[in-house]
Amino acid sequence: MNVGIVGGGQLARMLALAGLPLKLRFTFLDPAPDACAASLGTHLVGAFDDVAMLQRLAEASDVVTYEFENVPEAAIAYLAGHTAVHPAASALAIARDRWREKSLFRELGLPTAEFMAVDSLQHLQRAVSEIGLPAVLKTRTLGYDGKGQMLLRQPSDVETAWRRLGGVPLILESYVRFEREVSIIAVRGRDGDLRFYPLAENEHVDGILRLSRCRPEDAVQARAERYARAVLEELDYVGVLTLELFQAGDALLVNEMAPRIHNSGHWTIEGAAVSQFEHHLRAILGLPLGDTRALAHTAMVNFLGAVPPAARVLAVPGARLHDYGKRPQPGRKLGHATVLAADEGRLAASLTQLMPLA
Amino acid sequence: MNVGIVGGGQLARMLALAGLPLKLRFTFLDPAPDACAASLGTHLVGAFDDVAMLQRLAEASDVVTYEFENVPEAAIAYLAGHTAVHPAASALAIARDRWREKSLFRELGLPTAEFMAVDSLQHLQRAVSEIGLPAVLKTRTLGYDGKGQMLLRQPSDVETAWRRLGGVPLILESYVRFEREVSIIAVRGRDGDLRFYPLAENEHVDGILRLSRCRPEDAVQARAERYARAVLEELDYVGVLTLELFQAGDALLVNEMAPRIHNSGHWTIEGAAVSQFEHHLRAILGLPLGDTRALAHTAMVNFLGAVPPAARVLAVPGARLHDYGKRPQPGRKLGHATVLAADEGRLAASLTQLMPLA
Repeated sequence: MNVGIVGGGQLARMLALAGLPLKLRFTFLDPAPDACAASLGTHLVGAFDDVAMLQRLAEASDVVTYEFENVPEAAIAYLAGHTAVHPAASALAIARDRWREKSLFRELGLPTAEFMAVDSLQHLQRAVSEIGLPAVLKTRTLGYDGKGQMLLRQPSDVETAWRRLGGVPLILESYVRFEREVSIIAVRGRDGDLRFYPLAENEHVDGILRLSRCRPEDAVQARAERYARAVLEELDYVGVLTLELFQAGDALLVNEMAPRIHNSGHWTIEGAAVSQFEHHLRAILGLPLGDTRALAHTAMVNFLGAVPPAARVLAVPGARLHDYGKRPQPGRKLGHATVLAADEGRLAASLTQLMPLA
Repeated sequence: MNVGIVGGGQLARMLALAGLPLKLRFTFLDPAPDACAASLGTHLVGAFDDVAMLQRLAEASDVVTYEFENVPEAAIAYLAGHTAVHPAASALAIARDRWREKSLFRELGLPTAEFMAVDSLQHLQRAVSEIGLPAVLKTRTLGYDGKGQMLLRQPSDVETAWRRLGGVPLILESYVRFEREVSIIAVRGRDGDLRFYPLAENEHVDGILRLSRCRPEDAVQARAERYARAVLEELDYVGVLTLELFQAGDALLVNEMAPRIHNSGHWTIEGAAVSQFEHHLRAILGLPLGDTRALAHTAMVNFLGAVPPAARVLAVPGARLHDYGKRPQPGRKLGHATVLAADEGRLAASLTQLMPLA
């Protein structure tokens, strides 16, 4: 079977590494000549809206998927007209737009921060008076890793924020003083079969994920699964979907969804019976889903800007290294390490050694 | 780092899949244009004794290893003169020759079947009178998967066997009525660090491995580790080495060694904290060794001649599929499946579903 992927970065690379043992062949569309997935399949070097390239991608693929949600809508529509595309364009359209996304959660009765769409300074002022401060103003589309958003602490921040972000569709959200961020990764097959991984607890630095810990048997697992199920079933979703949630006291608020494999699920490569990458492929190809349970006490650490020497990472008990082979650049995600440990004590000890390397 | 591999079959392929996340680059020397590892690196299409190709392999590689022991001695000697080669030529020379191998075990005080070198019909008759019948006559070199050997049951078999196998150096071994065959996979780093996987219990059909079950905490684990340690330390070995043993009553006899990753260790890809493939690479590159413990109850089934449809394999609870992408041919190893289960009962149930597909 031939799988096309829009994007040739590390998520595409890890999809290919998961799919090669299943005898899958991959074609990547990515404008970067040095896209890090390229050597694992056929690399179409072209823009994501290059129709000739999209045509070649569709022709080469039994099914097309993508590694990021900001694929031009027209590109997905073109691909869907020529081959199978999973997850569906409709899910992508919602995930691309924070307001539509949160509106979906609200329609499904899932708890979220308060939010309002903002299209003008007047809208923003009205939203601030309804939602109160602090609040977060975000672009509805194209935001990621904390980009395209601004925290409003006091009334004087309102005009500054408008000047900084205004002119594109925005959303104002109440600021949630959460104790922790968790994410749940779910996979749904073409036949509706639905599986959930144990949730991950995530720590960000400057808006970018640094540390994910797998939390089997967490107290909010069942609630997170219920929320994810509602979303996946409403969208008749096929593939892996990630739901990010804030826990604040007893409240568990749905923050956003990613219609794809997710950085907070990289621990599943070694730490789960079947990884998120293999599961995404199984789902979009109509293959049976497998076991999502954790095989060990596991955590994942991102490497940004530089990957430490392999000898130092692998000297940490239980550590496994993933170097994506990307050109180093300050702040760029270049790799990660996963720690597998027999118990939480050993996991903590290994993280104490690993974190200073990151 | 650049790794050269003599051979481009499934073991080379699985080495590459294990090494790509560590940012290793691979060059394979293999005469088959469709060698199944080829797409994961640079493929030098040439004979194993093609000096021009060996030179290119050496130049491209920080370290060279091999996926099978029948590499021409002159080729290994050439490579060792131009780059680092692990495991060393000396280990390979012993492993290639059943008599030298068993003689090493005897020198180290390890129990083996009785054996004698045989170079003529007279030698064979003398060996039969000393060892008794039944006995097994084997070629000293180039045997694998039960090829190059013959069982002698009665005196009249002696001349038949000599006619069939004579003319090359032979070894006669007493026939061991073993209850089970087990193998232990060990890995030794450049610094002498030594780790052992839980042993595997192996079932063969027509001399070819069909089923391996990982047996953590087996009663003979400690003895098997002692034997393996003796061999690895005597040879100052670097890399993964597999020792095959027969259990007969209380006796544990060392049968043979494979100076490489081994079919009975394929379960380690998903079933162990670090696989035999990654461990072989870590060892030959001088990287720290990792954890060898089993993460689940695990078994592996080989697919010979045909790989069943992915949908049927993956429908078996806990099953993972490895299709090597090789051209089908009767009896050829084309792939395997590993089952990971939470307990022995579930493992047995899954094997009951999986075995009829193999």
